Amino acid sequence: MMLPTDRLLSFFWEDVPAGDITTLTLIPDEIVSARVEAREEMILAGVEECVWLFEHFDVSVTVEAGDGEHVAAGTKILSLAGSVHVILSVERTALNLLGRMSGIATATSVAQELASRVNDHVKVAGTRKTAPGLRYFDKKAIRIGGGDPHRDSLSDVFLIKDTHRALLPVAEAVRRAKAYSLYHKVECEVENLIDAIVAAEAGADILMFDNMAPSAVHEVIVALAARGLRNRLILEVSGGITSETIHLWTGIDVDTISIGALTHSVRCVDVSLEIE
Amino acid sequence: MMLPTDRLLSFFWEDVPAGDITTLTLIPDEIVSARVEAREEMILAGVEECVWLFEHFDVSVTVEAGDGEHVAAGTKILSLAGSVHVILSVERTALNLLGRMSGIATATSVAQELASRVNDHVKVAGTRKTAPGLRYFDKKAIRIGGGDPHRDSLSDVFLIKDTHRALLPVAEAVRRAKAYSLYHKVECEVENLIDAIVAAEAGADILMFDNMAPSAVHEVIVALAARGLRNRLILEVSGGITSETIHLWTGIDVDTISIGALTHSVRCVDVSLEIE
Amino acid sequence: MMLPTDRLLSFFWEDVPAGDITTLTLIPDEIVSARVEAREEMILAGVEECVWLFEHFDVSVTVEAGDGEHVAAGTKILSLAGSVHVILSVERTALNLLGRMSGIATATSVAQELASRVNDHVKVAGTRKTAPGLRYFDKKAIRIGGGDPHRDSLSDVFLIKDTHRALLPVAEAVRRAKAYSLYHKVECEVENLIDAIVAAEAGADILMFDNMAPSAVHEVIVALAARGLRNRLILEVSGGITSETIHLWTGIDVDTISIGALTHSVRCVDVSLEIE
Amino acid sequence: MMLPTDRLLSFFWEDVPAGDITTLTLIPDEIVSARVEAREEMILAGVEECVWLFEHFDVSVTVEAGDGEHVAAGTKILSLAGSVHVILSVERTALNLLGRMSGIATATSVAQELASRVNDHVKVAGTRKTAPGLRYFDKKAIRIGGGDPHRDSLSDVFLIKDTHRALLPVAEAVRRAKAYSLYHKVECEVENLIDAIVAAEAGADILMFDNMAPSAVHEVIVALAARGLRNRLILEVSGGITSETIHLWTGIDVDTISIGALTHSVRCVDVSLEIE
Amino acid sequence: MMLPTDRLLSFFWEDVPAGDITTLTLIPDEIVSARVEAREEMILAGVEECVWLFEHFDVSVTVEAGDGEHVAAGTKILSLAGSVHVILSVERTALNLLGRMSGIATATSVAQELASRVNDHVKVAGTRKTAPGLRYFDKKAIRIGGGDPHRDSLSDVFLIKDTHRALLPVAEAVRRAKAYSLYHKVECEVENLIDAIVAAEAGADILMFDNMAPSAVHEVIVALAARGLRNRLILEVSGGITSETIHLWTGIDVDTISIGALTHSVRCVDVSLEIE
Amino acid sequence: MMLPTDRLLSFFWEDVPAGDITTLTLIPDEIVSARVEAREEMILAGVEECVWLFEHFDVSVTVEAGDGEHVAAGTKILSLAGSVHVILSVERTALNLLGRMSGIATATSVAQELASRVNDHVKVAGTRKTAPGLRYFDKKAIRIGGGDPHRDSLSDVFLIKDTHRALLPVAEAVRRAKAYSLYHKVECEVENLIDAIVAAEAGADILMFDNMAPSAVHEVIVALAARGLRNRLILEVSGGITSETIHLWTGIDVDTISIGALTHSVRCVDVSLEIE
Repeated sequence: MMLPTDRLLSFFWEDVPAGDITTLTLIPDEIVSARVEAREEMILAGVEECVWLFEHFDVSVTVEAGDGEHVAAGTKILSLAGSVHVILSVERTALNLLGRMSGIATATSVAQELASRVNDHVKVAGTRKTAPGLRYFDKKAIRIGGGDPHRDSLSDVFLIKDTHRALLPVAEAVRRAKAYSLYHKVECEVENLIDAIVAAEAGADILMFDNMAPSAVHEVIVALAARGLRNRLILEVSGGITSETIHLWTGIDVDTISIGALTHSVRCVDVSLEIE
Repeated sequence: MMLPTDRLLSFFWEDVPAGDITTLTLIPDEIVSARVEAREEMILAGVEECVWLFEHFDVSVTVEAGDGEHVAAGTKILSLAGSVHVILSVERTALNLLGRMSGIATATSVAQELASRVNDHVKVAGTRKTAPGLRYFDKKAIRIGGGDPHRDSLSDVFLIKDTHRALLPVAEAVRRAKAYSLYHKVECEVENLIDAIVAAEAGADILMFDNMAPSAVHEVIVALAARGLRNRLILEVSGGITSETIHLWTGIDVDTISIGALTHSVRCVDVSLEIE
Repeated sequence: MMLPTDRLLSFFWEDVPAGDITTLTLIPDEIVSARVEAREEMILAGVEECVWLFEHFDVSVTVEAGDGEHVAAGTKILSLAGSVHVILSVERTALNLLGRMSGIATATSVAQELASRVNDHVKVAGTRKTAPGLRYFDKKAIRIGGGDPHRDSLSDVFLIKDTHRALLPVAEAVRRAKAYSLYHKVECEVENLIDAIVAAEAGADILMFDNMAPSAVHEVIVALAARGLRNRLILEVSGGITSETIHLWTGIDVDTISIGALTHSVRCVDVSLEIE
Repeated sequence: MMLPTDRLLSFFWEDVPAGDITTLTLIPDEIVSARVEAREEMILAGVEECVWLFEHFDVSVTVEAGDGEHVAAGTKILSLAGSVHVILSVERTALNLLGRMSGIATATSVAQELASRVNDHVKVAGTRKTAPGLRYFDKKAIRIGGGDPHRDSLSDVFLIKDTHRALLPVAEAVRRAKAYSLYHKVECEVENLIDAIVAAEAGADILMFDNMAPSAVHEVIVALAARGLRNRLILEVSGGITSETIHLWTGIDVDTISIGALTHSVRCVDVSLEIE
Repeated sequence: MMLPTDRLLSFFWEDVPAGDITTLTLIPDEIVSARVEAREEMILAGVEECVWLFEHFDVSVTVEAGDGEHVAAGTKILSLAGSVHVILSVERTALNLLGRMSGIATATSVAQELASRVNDHVKVAGTRKTAPGLRYFDKKAIRIGGGDPHRDSLSDVFLIKDTHRALLPVAEAVRRAKAYSLYHKVECEVENLIDAIVAAEAGADILMFDNMAPSAVHEVIVALAARGLRNRLILEVSGGITSETIHLWTGIDVDTISIGALTHSVRCVDVSLEIE
Repeated sequence: MMLPTDRLLSFFWEDVPAGDITTLTLIPDEIVSARVEAREEMILAGVEECVWLFEHFDVSVTVEAGDGEHVAAGTKILSLAGSVHVILSVERTALNLLGRMSGIATATSVAQELASRVNDHVKVAGTRKTAPGLRYFDKKAIRIGGGDPHRDSLSDVFLIKDTHRALLPVAEAVRRAKAYSLYHKVECEVENLIDAIVAAEAGADILMFDNMAPSAVHEVIVALAARGLRNRLILEVSGGITSETIHLWTGIDVDTISIGALTHSVRCVDVSLEIE
């Protein structure tokens, strides 16, 4: 497992700066069995991270259900055997991460299933609206849930917004981006057909229709197709879309639907640890 | 400002590992004005952190509305003047933190207002179910929102759970906790009146009624009061309570209602940055 | 073992930034046996940390005497078997920590034994006067030595001092502290009976008599008891008390005697490592 | 000032992980004046570090007495003007460091003064027996107190001990050390005249007489001088020497007396901060 | 300036763990003027980093020649005014970074100029063969020198190598890459025309001709063009190419020539600091 | 192995911030065999570091040729068995470090062999002109290559330069250095015989002839020898010397020739990893 282990450890120390005083003080250490289980239906994510945390402190772990699995309420996820002091100390750190990541994966999976009724190729995608410090984990959970993680940071995809276009023509913007590097994709926010054609002809790889109505996007796509420009492009829609509104895009030929709420407004799913 | 600045910087670098390639490449740096504003009603939290981030990179900041203020949609929060490269690079980091912290503060404030109809002294409280790595910020937002942050970690309050009681009598558990240190409070989960009396007489400072029905808790409190034990205790109810169910506790003499969802399932509020 | 291992490693690298040049250069690496032993009578603390350090670098360790044990001069603490290069490189880091922590534990134990003649329930306690960066280890050593570690930081117990009382009445101070959180104890420095009564009636959990004469403290405690306030309070005395002066408190009904010197002026005990 | 500021900040956060809850909660922030002062006679060390800590959080600082100054009880060290929240939050961190470093500097100065009666050139020296994580500060305090800090770590001076000599002849050990690098001094522990002559002739730069009686050391030095070897050597005595026993070395021609207790068993001197 | 300042500081502390003992000991601190200058012809890179380092320690800096400038031997780069202790302590850290980054920028510029004779659009590009820990700086220097930095890490561009193709068909590989994310480019190593056609038709964005002779590459490109596939592709050549061999590619229609030696075998250019 | 493992891990994460997306996405994980081999003649350095990296991620490693060995092109260095995902993810990090360190060791070895024709005792030495952040590794590689690593930092050897001599006499400078500490060597830059005699008589341990012609250095050495001063000194020549110019020093009685290019202008040697 290649995990950012120093961050996992920092999560642990945040919860246990000077030991679990209750457990250390009240009960003798002994070897116990325990299980982590799902208390509602979910897509699992974060299992690998939990395994590392328990194993790091010498707890034996058997994975009963792994990352990406769709499990029912009551499903056992991990079987643990080890020091009761350790298990109770690691419990909350592990469950907080598992609940959050599985929450993201589950929401992504639900959204992706809804999106699959839009057309046969569209993917839901994340955004950079992740919890501070948790991008690695939030993006990983989106991927596990079947979504497209989208760009990781401001450093890996060009995204030409109106702020930039106000200062230079799109064609020049795309030219400069490609002069910087040919190894990053160039995405361009567009608001109408003319924007779209200009960006496509300038060599943009991706068009983002931001806060446009589905019908308006549809018209632009049809027009792009008529000009033979659609196939060379990736088409993204964005802006306040949620699982509730994905159906409004039914029949429209977009490639990705990016949804900030997948990571900025996570509902943790319910997972628990029980000493057996 | 005494803020954990190294963590704030790490949030920034997470989003900008090799610079904002779009902005650096496409547009010349120049001094611009910008504003951060609320796009919905909210209680602000995280303003202090945003100020630090912008100022750290030499942007001048004026606070138009500060932490703890209840603002309407459209309210200007910060006025900024500085390098457009910096402002666009810091934007997402700042907004992600501001949106999350204000989301927590707002939800806490809503819950606290509902709780104030339960009785005249009850406080809503957080839990340890925070996002990994963000406890400091999550707890701070609860406090700004008018809630009780509850314990920070496993190291600062004794919480005697059924796991512990299964292994030793409550009276002995409390004795051991106090032998460890007199400077930490001792909280005890209880499930019925007998538990409660035993814990109170053993010297517990706080009783937690976990997953008990309001009527059952009420009966216990009445009985504790009859024995003269209620006043020396802090009484907490916990377990799946949400803003929707707080009203079920109306008239019951509890001191704190702890709500995990305040931090484990945050809805980020909508904040934006506009170049002027 | 759940130890702050990154700090333990940083202690090692502080002493060995570019290797133990003498050992690496002069002698071939080979497997040797060695022992760590006490060279004077002491209460052991820091053994767990030493075990981790040696084991981290693949030395086999047998604990002959563990944390909290009261050992005589000449007692073997650890038996080691491993690379002579490693053992000689880790030696000083391990002994420095073991000597300091055992020094604190030993001094605490001595003080606690003296305190046990004061009354049958008093504990000696630490303070925040620890060596910078070593609070975790210093507090742990106090606990191992039988003392009360007292608060860990400015964030976990309210301590209302004259600085604060100069600006607001004690009753209001206690009210604000409890409004902040019900999960932290509230301690109040007092200088005379009136202060003590006011603080007790305001709901303070702990009174600290700072730099008061034993007889004056005694009078206040008697008066508190007469008013039925003593039992709900924890009573601490503080201010320049040392093992030499603990006996002055004989017969006085205090709960804790806090002694800064336990950690700010440590005498390291003598421990050594011998290659066998 | 070129100081290890990240470590200074880590000392602060150790004491204030979630803010000074008492001060933040009870009193409004306002600008106040304060002073740091010596409450006993001392040689100051750590002043520079305190200045950085206060200034880092925007407190104005005037140095009234600086590192290395010999001050009387009651001397003002720093004048401060700034946020009362900040000053009270930084107080303990600053005083803990100042008290420890000044304690080391003072003890070093006392020892050096005693040593100056031994002969006209001898210096007291530190050892590697420093508090874990504090070597930089401990060694700096020794230097400020007028002592020789001795080697910083296992990586900067060769120290050939009996462990090494048991495995190879001293002449070969020195040869290997010099083959490693000509830029590190080579020190050799010796126990008698023959050892000393062999080491000197092998090219050792420094001889350490470890746990030898003053008279025995004297005899060896006289014999070395007779052979014309003394002047090219630095001669160190070591092993349990304290301020109380330095006088036993009177008249003996050693260059350094290394004293572990200077840093392993520090008495913090009394410094305080007062709001004015 | 948005620079990875913690890494810049770590470079400083690597060179000055316990101060510049020579300067601190021998000469009094005073304000001096100094200059950093080029001692040979070069393209400057790393100037911004040097400015930060000196300014961080309160030295006033005037930039006389900035990043990207082509300067002659003897050109003044920075004018400094500040503490002589600071300037001499920072000197080597600053010059080591400036010499390395300018060396990379200069070599890149030379290679790019040679490449401009190959065709009118080709760019020289870096690789992941950077010095460990210095990728940010090495890639930045390539960009300043006019090259394409290429991918930053294994996480930002798909690069399908023979190792992968041995296990699945290229078409399936490209499909899986795009199913992972549409926001990363997909590059494919090819060895002959059939590989190239298959990869292009599968939707690869970039073809890399690894260790192929210029004439062989030329034939493939002609054939791709004949099939109408060339324009949608970015074509890279790689494998042991140096400034000495770039000319062999003259007239061949490639887009990037990646050169590992730009960063794996850097010649530092000569820069110096003089006290005036 | 006592290695700075946190830095090794940081090198890995620099190359793999969010996983090797190609390998993770395209091919299933399975256990494979692989080998690291030399593709040209070289002196190996960095092998120990590569072993740690692979083993840290649970790859079994057999060392076929270790640090310091002189190997021919085609020599197998490591045999690996483990997860193909891990091996491909670690590959570049390991090879970058191995190629750089072996490059330094090889260049050092070549230079040392040339130097051995100068006289029978001279060593080539490194300087502080190392890559930022890599001093530990660069210096270690010099040592493995048979050179003298020279001083590690500004904190471990006094080096009195013209800057210092301009402000105080050499004799006074040496006196102050020795008053600071007797455990650091004192080196003095000299430009002529008078400088050399003054420095030698003042007690300098090392003289550095900086940018002087071999004949001029020779004359000074002869004159020093005539005065009986040569033997107590270490004599270093420095300033733009390379492998190409070492022969100019033939017959001159210097002790070290320091060569900045050994680390500031490294040619990485060619090493590769092959899946078997």
